[in-house]
Amino acid sequence: MAGDPVPVAVLGASGFSGAELLRLLAGHPQLEVAFVGAHDAAGQRLGEVWPHLAPFADRMLEPNDALDPGSVGAAFLALPAGHSSRIVPALAERGVHVVDVGPDFRLPPGDYPAWYGFDHPAPAWVEKAAYGLTELFREEVRGAALVANPGCYPTPVLLGLWPLVEAGLTEGDVVVDGKSGISGAGKTPTAQSHFASLDGSVRAYRVGRHQHTPEMERILGRAGASVTFVPHLVPAVRGIVTTSYVGVAAGATADDLRATLATRYAGEPFVRVLGAGTTPDPKRLAGTNVCELAVEVDTHAPGARGTAVVIGAIDNLGKGAAGQAVQNLNAMLGLEETAGLATIGVYP
Amino acid sequence: MAGDPVPVAVLGASGFSGAELLRLLAGHPQLEVAFVGAHDAAGQRLGEVWPHLAPFADRMLEPNDALDPGSVGAAFLALPAGHSSRIVPALAERGVHVVDVGPDFRLPPGDYPAWYGFDHPAPAWVEKAAYGLTELFREEVRGAALVANPGCYPTPVLLGLWPLVEAGLTEGDVVVDGKSGISGAGKTPTAQSHFASLDGSVRAYRVGRHQHTPEMERILGRAGASVTFVPHLVPAVRGIVTTSYVGVAAGATADDLRATLATRYAGEPFVRVLGAGTTPDPKRLAGTNVCELAVEVDTHAPGARGTAVVIGAIDNLGKGAAGQAVQNLNAMLGLEETAGLATIGVYP
Amino acid sequence: MAGDPVPVAVLGASGFSGAELLRLLAGHPQLEVAFVGAHDAAGQRLGEVWPHLAPFADRMLEPNDALDPGSVGAAFLALPAGHSSRIVPALAERGVHVVDVGPDFRLPPGDYPAWYGFDHPAPAWVEKAAYGLTELFREEVRGAALVANPGCYPTPVLLGLWPLVEAGLTEGDVVVDGKSGISGAGKTPTAQSHFASLDGSVRAYRVGRHQHTPEMERILGRAGASVTFVPHLVPAVRGIVTTSYVGVAAGATADDLRATLATRYAGEPFVRVLGAGTTPDPKRLAGTNVCELAVEVDTHAPGARGTAVVIGAIDNLGKGAAGQAVQNLNAMLGLEETAGLATIGVYP
Amino acid sequence: MAGDPVPVAVLGASGFSGAELLRLLAGHPQLEVAFVGAHDAAGQRLGEVWPHLAPFADRMLEPNDALDPGSVGAAFLALPAGHSSRIVPALAERGVHVVDVGPDFRLPPGDYPAWYGFDHPAPAWVEKAAYGLTELFREEVRGAALVANPGCYPTPVLLGLWPLVEAGLTEGDVVVDGKSGISGAGKTPTAQSHFASLDGSVRAYRVGRHQHTPEMERILGRAGASVTFVPHLVPAVRGIVTTSYVGVAAGATADDLRATLATRYAGEPFVRVLGAGTTPDPKRLAGTNVCELAVEVDTHAPGARGTAVVIGAIDNLGKGAAGQAVQNLNAMLGLEETAGLATIGVYP
Repeated sequence: MAGDPVPVAVLGASGFSGAELLRLLAGHPQLEVAFVGAHDAAGQRLGEVWPHLAPFADRMLEPNDALDPGSVGAAFLALPAGHSSRIVPALAERGVHVVDVGPDFRLPPGDYPAWYGFDHPAPAWVEKAAYGLTELFREEVRGAALVANPGCYPTPVLLGLWPLVEAGLTEGDVVVDGKSGISGAGKTPTAQSHFASLDGSVRAYRVGRHQHTPEMERILGRAGASVTFVPHLVPAVRGIVTTSYVGVAAGATADDLRATLATRYAGEPFVRVLGAGTTPDPKRLAGTNVCELAVEVDTHAPGARGTAVVIGAIDNLGKGAAGQAVQNLNAMLGLEETAGLATIGVYP
Repeated sequence: MAGDPVPVAVLGASGFSGAELLRLLAGHPQLEVAFVGAHDAAGQRLGEVWPHLAPFADRMLEPNDALDPGSVGAAFLALPAGHSSRIVPALAERGVHVVDVGPDFRLPPGDYPAWYGFDHPAPAWVEKAAYGLTELFREEVRGAALVANPGCYPTPVLLGLWPLVEAGLTEGDVVVDGKSGISGAGKTPTAQSHFASLDGSVRAYRVGRHQHTPEMERILGRAGASVTFVPHLVPAVRGIVTTSYVGVAAGATADDLRATLATRYAGEPFVRVLGAGTTPDPKRLAGTNVCELAVEVDTHAPGARGTAVVIGAIDNLGKGAAGQAVQNLNAMLGLEETAGLATIGVYP
Repeated sequence: MAGDPVPVAVLGASGFSGAELLRLLAGHPQLEVAFVGAHDAAGQRLGEVWPHLAPFADRMLEPNDALDPGSVGAAFLALPAGHSSRIVPALAERGVHVVDVGPDFRLPPGDYPAWYGFDHPAPAWVEKAAYGLTELFREEVRGAALVANPGCYPTPVLLGLWPLVEAGLTEGDVVVDGKSGISGAGKTPTAQSHFASLDGSVRAYRVGRHQHTPEMERILGRAGASVTFVPHLVPAVRGIVTTSYVGVAAGATADDLRATLATRYAGEPFVRVLGAGTTPDPKRLAGTNVCELAVEVDTHAPGARGTAVVIGAIDNLGKGAAGQAVQNLNAMLGLEETAGLATIGVYP
Repeated sequence: MAGDPVPVAVLGASGFSGAELLRLLAGHPQLEVAFVGAHDAAGQRLGEVWPHLAPFADRMLEPNDALDPGSVGAAFLALPAGHSSRIVPALAERGVHVVDVGPDFRLPPGDYPAWYGFDHPAPAWVEKAAYGLTELFREEVRGAALVANPGCYPTPVLLGLWPLVEAGLTEGDVVVDGKSGISGAGKTPTAQSHFASLDGSVRAYRVGRHQHTPEMERILGRAGASVTFVPHLVPAVRGIVTTSYVGVAAGATADDLRATLATRYAGEPFVRVLGAGTTPDPKRLAGTNVCELAVEVDTHAPGARGTAVVIGAIDNLGKGAAGQAVQNLNAMLGLEETAGLATIGVYP
């Protein structure tokens, strides 16, 4: 490795994903934070907003839109839905490599009014964006000027299911039951995020109408599968577990499914396929960019072909957001894909 | 109401369900604790084992098998699998009303070797036992000498699903995704129950082979449905949420399903059917005997009839164990069914 | 027991203390909720604000100031600082028994500007108010028209220290280190109460300048002791532990101190003095009106008389707020002091 | 820097500190894990014991005593009390640089029977050991063959107090109130570490007789101060907060104390002295080797000189164990002291 570090911008640094990006970039050997942007928090020092980022404490938060595209080689956009799609064209056309951590480039343009409540302002760029599940779509990511970082729930779901669905080992529609810590809901204090409300609680939300549903279906639908998705909030900070249920194709066994995943992810440092009888646990992935996967097949019902249960776990701020984003930029820039990313979690 | 309180025994008082029974009985106007039994803890005072039961602190724990059937009118058995089935006949034949909080009388005798690992020693009593989901099987419970208290997971699953399945509003097999606090796993310290292991963790376990599966199928199978069940441990103490997925019958709407449950449970103090857009939360049920239920139907996939999502929440030590047991004994003895039971949780 | 239940009002029902009062009153045999008041939440149904109070779901929240004094025999005021002092005179002068759960009548009038930021509007009523630590000041409480319910931190501190200080078993000033769950900080979502902020955190706050300091000194100062008080927020919902440090008088032993407390609280259902080597735990007090106390004396330093360590634990919404308030009203009305109050916590 | 990495051993790898050492060493540029030892777990693969250490999964755990001193340049000993003192001489005499993470070399030999229950087998080595609070005793550490890594509680206490005590800014004895997450109590499941027991609990333990008391006094006693220390267990995994109370010397102000600490730690990457009104929080230190310190002086009591409140926070497995150990070895070997150590926590 040689050469100067690449200057990068982080927009949306006052959110959890933005803060995690800064933490990762502080340890990245080839990327250098050149611009830190925020909206409401612009004008504050980073130490006021994020005391844990003490080494950056005196850095000023600039207004997001004060970024000069000529000053950076790449930009991470960690903005609310509807914001990055107004900014990306001006950046990407100036040659800035963009990883959009938000949802603006994940779906066909026509899906945005129904699922996100806005008309997409840059549909042409949706077509150009690569879907940044690096292990599955590495070639597209490598050549892309813009990468749409996947949503947190779709990440373990698709890493676990798509190789099986693509290989014809499943049949029929999919049920996805998700469990997430509260950091996925963002930093703004609400009645739901109050400790007194969440501690001891498990709550389903947006039953059957969560905006990550079409993102899963965009991939799984290539094989005709639709998805019923119910996310739940659990009393944890980081971590997502997704439990997916789908019919098994005639003749396929649990070992077949497991072997398909193991083969697909052999040599991948950020995906671990667990053996029979062990289940993923996001706790041991805290701070990492790793996804754990496990597959079992329930064949206890007489006469049934069986139901595949595909379980995935990630740190939603890692492989589900900032870690994945760094991995994508590494791939876009031709850097070592693992640069700046951890594979051992802070445990316990 | 008049008359002397009924003397009752609690066997297995060193476990969480036993302790919760004693807490409830301390506030019960017509039942009186006459015998407190344990196995390993026999010979200790209750205050040593359970400091929170301070008003009973000096009470001795007797050996479970020292209970004189003639000394009590009723007995709660909160014992590990395989234990109560050896004790029940001698008690029930002497006229003691028995509520078995454990699993020994919930399944057909032939299911015990495969799911619980023992040959049932009293198959005749399995036939006589009522399945103690009081709201669904009240008449059987009222006339029974022995009631098999339901398992914690089956309780919210069956209260939510059975009225719909029975009414023909669903079709096909059922997926049940369960989430439970650690108290359901008992008091013995293990690697899994260590705070440093569970905090921040969400873990599936016994995927597709949990022993509550046949208990759900015993009821739902009357309509031909089999069950794929995956339980998960979440970082909470009390509380279970079950999220059940099943196809909707042609023509049935979410309102139909909701109305069916509302009608079925009208006037029931311990079942609350929530309105559209609200979801159950076990946190607000802590210490109660209440089950919250909600139904949504996912119809977003074009051409699909839709998938019903039936969500239930309970306090696993309340409606999922000790509360349900007291409700059952109340019904068996002809007492007010609500005697000694709370409907307002300790919240937050 | 005979006679009609006493109609009572709860003002400030949208806060945690108000909700806990309603939960307790639902199970009180001689008090009946006649009026439920709120400020911002007035006009909503109770079920919208507090889903766990389902049996009261359809009750309307009235504006706090719509209470007709003639309609109730007693009132609980669970209002922010500075509010009840404007309301109490009109109620008390009309013969309503008032328990003020807030801080407006706990201190000498002259202390309010410095510690609470307002000039006291009803100083004469401060003089008439009894300080409602029932076990210590029962006679004053019984005869009072107005009781100032103690603050949450002072409750275990004073129950543990005052009998020792009064008996001359201690000497010098006191250090009080407090640890509280988040419910003591109220229901409003803030950056501090966000689950992602509090989980895994332990934070001191208002170091040396918490408003409960003068409340402790008002009592302990009778014997000349001043207090350095540092409260800490811990990742829990309910529960306070206070650890107090004070010099031991010449010749006094740990057994002397323990015996003094044991004697003082003999026969008190809501105070438990633990033996040597055991320590209080608020977890087992959840939902109760109980205070646990323990005393140790550290004499390891050669030549030193020793430092007494007095530890107290309560449920801050129970003995630290709503439970204590009900106990006080019971005493004021000549009812059984334990009516409507639990001594066994919901555990685990 | 050039040259081959130094081969190091980690003994006691099945404990939390051992696992954290392996996590840190995996990212250390100049140290290489050459031997991984355990006692009961010897013979297992690391992946069985610690799934989060997946990149090391196939590594075998050797018996601790199988270490060949000639095969390593340094060794971390993370063993229970009484074990390392039997091993250290053989290692140190063979030129292995030893960092003892356990307590065997922290106290004068004569203190071990009373506080740790064993007679010290290698008193001569106690004299030679440096006390590894690097920021305070750097010169001793740099020249040492054996470093006694400090206890978790004494670390923030001494970093905060010693510079003040040494400068004569305090007077009299010290009260230390500690709060720790459960990882400090180790990995073995016990009744105390059960999630159902700890969640919602705050418990004092070993009141006035914790073995870290003499360790604090060994340093603070140089200025004549004795310590009353009460540790508490709080429902968290990592993290310690210590709140120390001591009289302020005549004429000294809070600013004086703060300035003394700020000067002492200027340029130290692992100690952060916070400004007035802000308090340490271990949550933002998770995974780091950082200690946060804050000082306030309570002068509210009329006529009093005031009480200094010195608050410290660390990750007990980082600066309180494994991180501190790596920092010490870095100093011993003349490496960059920050090598392999994080200063930004995994937050939230």
